[in-house]
Amino acid sequence: MREVHTHVRDWMRGAGMAVTVDAAGNIRGVYPSADAPARRLYMASHLDTVPNAGAFDGVLGVLIGIALVEALEGRGLPFAVEVIGFSEEEGVRFGTPFIGSRALAGTLDDEALARCDRNGVSVADAIRAFGLDADRIADARAAHDAIGYLEFHIAQGPVLESRGRPIGVVNGIAGQTRLALTFTGTANHAGTTPMSLRHDALAGAAEWIAAVEAAAVGTPDLVATVGHIEALPNASNVIAGRCDVSLDVRHRDDGVRQRSAVALVQLAAGIALRRGLAVSHEVRLDQHAVAMDDGLTRVLEQAVHDSGAPLEHLVSGAGHDAMVVGGCMPAAMLFLRSPGGISHHPDEAVREDDVALALEVGQRFLARLAEPPV
Amino acid sequence: MREVHTHVRDWMRGAGMAVTVDAAGNIRGVYPSADAPARRLYMASHLDTVPNAGAFDGVLGVLIGIALVEALEGRGLPFAVEVIGFSEEEGVRFGTPFIGSRALAGTLDDEALARCDRNGVSVADAIRAFGLDADRIADARAAHDAIGYLEFHIAQGPVLESRGRPIGVVNGIAGQTRLALTFTGTANHAGTTPMSLRHDALAGAAEWIAAVEAAAVGTPDLVATVGHIEALPNASNVIAGRCDVSLDVRHRDDGVRQRSAVALVQLAAGIALRRGLAVSHEVRLDQHAVAMDDGLTRVLEQAVHDSGAPLEHLVSGAGHDAMVVGGCMPAAMLFLRSPGGISHHPDEAVREDDVALALEVGQRFLARLAEPPV
Repeated sequence: MREVHTHVRDWMRGAGMAVTVDAAGNIRGVYPSADAPARRLYMASHLDTVPNAGAFDGVLGVLIGIALVEALEGRGLPFAVEVIGFSEEEGVRFGTPFIGSRALAGTLDDEALARCDRNGVSVADAIRAFGLDADRIADARAAHDAIGYLEFHIAQGPVLESRGRPIGVVNGIAGQTRLALTFTGTANHAGTTPMSLRHDALAGAAEWIAAVEAAAVGTPDLVATVGHIEALPNASNVIAGRCDVSLDVRHRDDGVRQRSAVALVQLAAGIALRRGLAVSHEVRLDQHAVAMDDGLTRVLEQAVHDSGAPLEHLVSGAGHDAMVVGGCMPAAMLFLRSPGGISHHPDEAVREDDVALALEVGQRFLARLAEPPV
Repeated sequence: MREVHTHVRDWMRGAGMAVTVDAAGNIRGVYPSADAPARRLYMASHLDTVPNAGAFDGVLGVLIGIALVEALEGRGLPFAVEVIGFSEEEGVRFGTPFIGSRALAGTLDDEALARCDRNGVSVADAIRAFGLDADRIADARAAHDAIGYLEFHIAQGPVLESRGRPIGVVNGIAGQTRLALTFTGTANHAGTTPMSLRHDALAGAAEWIAAVEAAAVGTPDLVATVGHIEALPNASNVIAGRCDVSLDVRHRDDGVRQRSAVALVQLAAGIALRRGLAVSHEVRLDQHAVAMDDGLTRVLEQAVHDSGAPLEHLVSGAGHDAMVVGGCMPAAMLFLRSPGGISHHPDEAVREDDVALALEVGQRFLARLAEPPV
């Protein structure tokens, strides 16, 4: 991260920004307003990513912010622009994501600061080891009269590409339900137990997994995923007596998501009852959807229109810093198409002409925002 | 095993048998014929079982053999009776089963003797360590003019109990096909990948598991089991890119079994094709069915009839020593009902009145066999 800061700091300064690193390790460049005192627009994304990742997740959004300031060539706007490279979004080291943006939003509490990595080093310890003052996290908080927050990010999914669209305006970030289910039957000999006398936990789970998929296909914009499965005793010649499965359900509409999760659990109960199995479930996560700000999104839509690009909307299935910052100021987000829908992988990519288009949209966004109110 | 031999030896001697331990560690008691020289009837089962097992698997058959000789109270038959407690049937230590009965059948070859346990001790080493001469395995072979082989064994499955039958005559031992299949799709983000753009290896495998079960239910007497499953990366928020599954198919008719295995692989290929997945398979075992001897089984059926018990037939889904010995002499087998279908478990049981009935059938079997040919 120090090495990344070295580069980012140079580029920020080259674009005319005053650079600091806040107590949460976020690098922040401020480009002053033509008027003083002035309100502030934030443009940010994260500098971290996951292990074995690609080169664009997060960091592209930071660099687009810097490039947009650079393109002003010293011209002042009627507001200040602050570009931030967040220190931590993925939650890889501490199992808790959005450390950087929570500091900006003022929600990075003591509980989060006390979370430890696998070596017992807490977030606060890591901040101190980096040479920062963990007691000054509150100073990292955004100005209360901020204009808003704009984030550029790769889409990390195949939707834009499949629609043949270079960029998309994000309507909101889907809510998530995560469940753990256990089907319990009777382990028995695969050779001596006739089909009619089985209570096969894996066969029950398999029927349910297929039904989950069918239900999601039948519900517009719902995604439901069983990604984890474990059968016991998991031997080729023994009927499974137990099968643990995960369920991940996401939708932009919390009502649809919650009703779907309930229906899928009921589906499991029905399958289990018919097969003489038991089934239990546990809710691991129930996170509501976050809408982007209508007003700021409208400015972004105008900017897309001004650029001549087709206007495409989509809901983000993944979480983003914009979701966190959106809690304290108006937030908007623009996705860039991910070739092959690939992300969190060395093959992660972005098309150069899509980046050029995003930069044009960003310039037009700043221009629209600089217009005097009608 | 030494301790078991101490008891078995005493009981065999008490019943009037001359006792030896052969080079494969089988304990063998010979009850002489009233006529000499005479042909020989073998009654045997195994003395070993699996870890964490019950008290009846294998050993019950040995003790019924001894009890039948004991019940003769010294009366001679027109043939000799040899009761054997096989040293090794399960294959737990060396991964290769039927060591005891293969010695009797003359098929315990050098390859089997060279098989090592997890500590690098070979079968031949273990035989020597027990104080026996591994070079004399050939001497353990059965007489070439044997009358036949009769084995009593707990059913180890729920079939007899579900039919309300105490005992059952075994028609044959089912053949087995074991396959390993791999479905390959594309791992992707569970939140950003719409249902329509997924290539979910686990969802494909689940559809196939349900179809395997339905196909087996629809084919009389077929059992097909998916007992092992492994998804990759097996994370709740990632669509599985790969899913490995096992398939175990058994039927008394090799044609039905082999056609079913082929059909189930084709089913996987069809599912994979429709879903844009790849699927590969590998045959791990293709063991043909073994029929019991018609003539000796007819004598056993007459004995069941003589006892007044209902005559029930069934096919064994599990392998047994009778399958191995059946390669060198006529073999027949009688199952005793397993309460709850439970076996290879401390709760494994057998009903006392079922054992009494099996003993009566055994006595009537010996009586029928002693009748002069018509």
